[in-house]
Amino acid sequence: MSLLDALRAAIGADHVLTGEEAAPYLTDWRKLVRGQAQAVVRPADTAQVAAVMRLCAEHGTPVVPQGGNTGQVAGGVPGADGNGIVLSLARLNRVRAIDTENDTITVEAGCILQSIQQAAEAAGRLFPLSLGAEGSCMIGGNLASNAGGTAVLRYGNARELCLGLEVVLPDGEIWDGLRGLRKDNSGYSLRDLFIGSEGTLGIITAATLKLFPQPAARLTALAALPGVQQAGAFLSRCRGGFHAALTGFELMSGACLQLVTATYPQQRLPFQPPWDASWYVLLEISDAEGEEHATARLEAVLGEAMEAGEVEDVALAQNIAQARAMWTLRESITLALAEDGKCLKHDVSLPVSAVPGFVESTDAALQARFPGIRNFTFGHLGDGNLHYNVARPAQGTDAQLHAMQPDLSNLVHDAVDALGGSISAEQGIGRVRTHDLARYKQPTALRLMRAVKQAIDPKGLLNPGVLLP
Amino acid sequence: MSLLDALRAAIGADHVLTGEEAAPYLTDWRKLVRGQAQAVVRPADTAQVAAVMRLCAEHGTPVVPQGGNTGQVAGGVPGADGNGIVLSLARLNRVRAIDTENDTITVEAGCILQSIQQAAEAAGRLFPLSLGAEGSCMIGGNLASNAGGTAVLRYGNARELCLGLEVVLPDGEIWDGLRGLRKDNSGYSLRDLFIGSEGTLGIITAATLKLFPQPAARLTALAALPGVQQAGAFLSRCRGGFHAALTGFELMSGACLQLVTATYPQQRLPFQPPWDASWYVLLEISDAEGEEHATARLEAVLGEAMEAGEVEDVALAQNIAQARAMWTLRESITLALAEDGKCLKHDVSLPVSAVPGFVESTDAALQARFPGIRNFTFGHLGDGNLHYNVARPAQGTDAQLHAMQPDLSNLVHDAVDALGGSISAEQGIGRVRTHDLARYKQPTALRLMRAVKQAIDPKGLLNPGVLLP
Repeated sequence: MSLLDALRAAIGADHVLTGEEAAPYLTDWRKLVRGQAQAVVRPADTAQVAAVMRLCAEHGTPVVPQGGNTGQVAGGVPGADGNGIVLSLARLNRVRAIDTENDTITVEAGCILQSIQQAAEAAGRLFPLSLGAEGSCMIGGNLASNAGGTAVLRYGNARELCLGLEVVLPDGEIWDGLRGLRKDNSGYSLRDLFIGSEGTLGIITAATLKLFPQPAARLTALAALPGVQQAGAFLSRCRGGFHAALTGFELMSGACLQLVTATYPQQRLPFQPPWDASWYVLLEISDAEGEEHATARLEAVLGEAMEAGEVEDVALAQNIAQARAMWTLRESITLALAEDGKCLKHDVSLPVSAVPGFVESTDAALQARFPGIRNFTFGHLGDGNLHYNVARPAQGTDAQLHAMQPDLSNLVHDAVDALGGSISAEQGIGRVRTHDLARYKQPTALRLMRAVKQAIDPKGLLNPGVLLP
Repeated sequence: MSLLDALRAAIGADHVLTGEEAAPYLTDWRKLVRGQAQAVVRPADTAQVAAVMRLCAEHGTPVVPQGGNTGQVAGGVPGADGNGIVLSLARLNRVRAIDTENDTITVEAGCILQSIQQAAEAAGRLFPLSLGAEGSCMIGGNLASNAGGTAVLRYGNARELCLGLEVVLPDGEIWDGLRGLRKDNSGYSLRDLFIGSEGTLGIITAATLKLFPQPAARLTALAALPGVQQAGAFLSRCRGGFHAALTGFELMSGACLQLVTATYPQQRLPFQPPWDASWYVLLEISDAEGEEHATARLEAVLGEAMEAGEVEDVALAQNIAQARAMWTLRESITLALAEDGKCLKHDVSLPVSAVPGFVESTDAALQARFPGIRNFTFGHLGDGNLHYNVARPAQGTDAQLHAMQPDLSNLVHDAVDALGGSISAEQGIGRVRTHDLARYKQPTALRLMRAVKQAIDPKGLLNPGVLLP
């Protein structure tokens, strides 16, 4: 029997897609990669995923696991050779259990992130992982790529939110690590090996995740800073003043907000924009007590920051609509950049203390070498994570920018590397950054990674071409 | 040249110990294991550790890394064959850097935990890892065993506190993963593979750790509960009321406190002990604002808990001396147990929601099978971590208890396993629990662990006999 016939027998012919039906699964949403595959299979549960993997192992057929296909680095789509299959986890979408006394939720890999947030809320709890794609990304992909987002400052990355995993291995065996334990020192942390492995070691089919109490009140504020140099001191003050109540600290350059308000005129800043005050911080605090307490705390700390000259102007959202409008400014940056044309994106992390110096010196070095290019930098300052975006000169073309690409990105990444940073903070390596990984990762680290891959997936069937150079 | 001569040449003859000088390194502090070794070597820095590993790899000589030698499972002492050497990290004891703006500290493996806490405090920051042995344990061992302790509820295990590692590999190569980054998705999390691997994959020589703001006020309270069934609801109330300000939630049975106060008559409970109120919780909150705010919050939440019948009596420590006295009650349980005689210890974790049921049914099952045995259960309820200790009947002997051991421990661990728990919550496997690991770990997990070990330490030179059955 051919592989495809065997797959049809195992999971039902309706769930083995080819031709037109398969097409949407073969291209990532950014259209960076258009791949090919023998078929797209959509198993219904863990047992079917295991059956698919056993069949593919027998046939020596590569497998590309895919969740919501919202990744930035094309880690969930196949390459051009067409040898493999795409394994979609979309039908594994049940919430298996919520335990409010243990503060855990157990979900299948195909659950949409937002549906998990909602299930937690319905149980009076918070699942804090939050990112732009939350309406369509799936938790399996979030874990496979160790997703970050806007709440990492307080709650950590996807890795820190996960207690246990169920994983189908390359040979079809099921590793049952689905535990809801805060402490478990009985052997190597296999969980942490699969998290962030981008589907190259095993297929995550379910996870047990941490829940938290819902905040009694959430307040949002937008602050204008005289410059990026003040951002570090302002963050330190907020961490010291709010401790764990500080749940958002998003840095944005004036250029970003200028672009957003020019592109979407219905969006406005809550104060007369001092564009020469070139940096802004969107701040969120989550309070255990209530709105009155939160407001008093926020006013006290922001007052001190203004007195110290870290902040020039500040607006507190007075209601949910105003808070929403502030967050929309932040979330519109990527959309406004897309309207503007092509843009070279760098998802880098640095020690927080190195961020202001990095921005100033790298901006200057780029201007010197590529006159007129435009920086649109924003990011999660509390995590040292910058989205360092570079657009063509105002009078330039996308083609000119494209020609600058290798040299320009190497300049940015060399600067990151020299400061002990990472060339991929939260988006992973996927298919598009393997070349950069080869350039910047210590050879010893690459050797260890290859040894681990060889140990767990000796035939190299899982997601070939992704992550490992 | 013999191995020992080569080691003397590499790190200095004074630091290659044999005979009497080596003896203290060959026995764990609980005296569970008395091992043998060719020598104990004490390199001065990472380069010397690498040189030692290269020489041992050439000679095929096993290496047992050792920190403060305070572990509970004899993971840092050699076996009986005498083939290997002990590699003490004690001389690698420098604080390499503190970065208050990045909130990180970079330390060498031989730094004593307490000295790291003190260095953080001197910089106006908190390093929260805290456990009984903190005056003599070393951070390298804390990381190699993924230490837990009393602050896990708020700050996580050693794993969650570590951002980067420097590790010497079995062949003497140095993996430089010493990064102070909150986000880094550039490949497999090698850091998390070495953390908790109990010295079987590599030798941790340095680490970059997270720092936090110092709390403005810390308050301690002791609460008497009508029974263990109320502990879960009381914990949920405290988590919901205090959120991240809840930094300690230690559960203790009445029997534990009765034993402490009988053994050390100078220690007293802060209220008339209702021994029939058989369970107690030691509670700590760390406040961002100050003592007045903390007191008001604590009184409000504890008042609600009393009204709801979760708590029968409560005492707030009025000053540091009273808080210290409450913590001393908690910390004296282990000492009082040692005075009482032998005791069968079980360091287990469970979903928090399963803890009360586990305690009641396991206590009853033990009484039925081993009449008269005495339970002394305490633990970190917020982490689902119980130290489930069993002592001989009041009229029994240590020898009788010893005879019960395998059956009794299997009964306890079978119950833990049936509830999805772990037979080692925070202490690791070491040399003394490999048999239990073989009994309870899923064969698939053991196979993966062995594959990883083979990939990174193919000659099996690092800590043979530890962790892997």
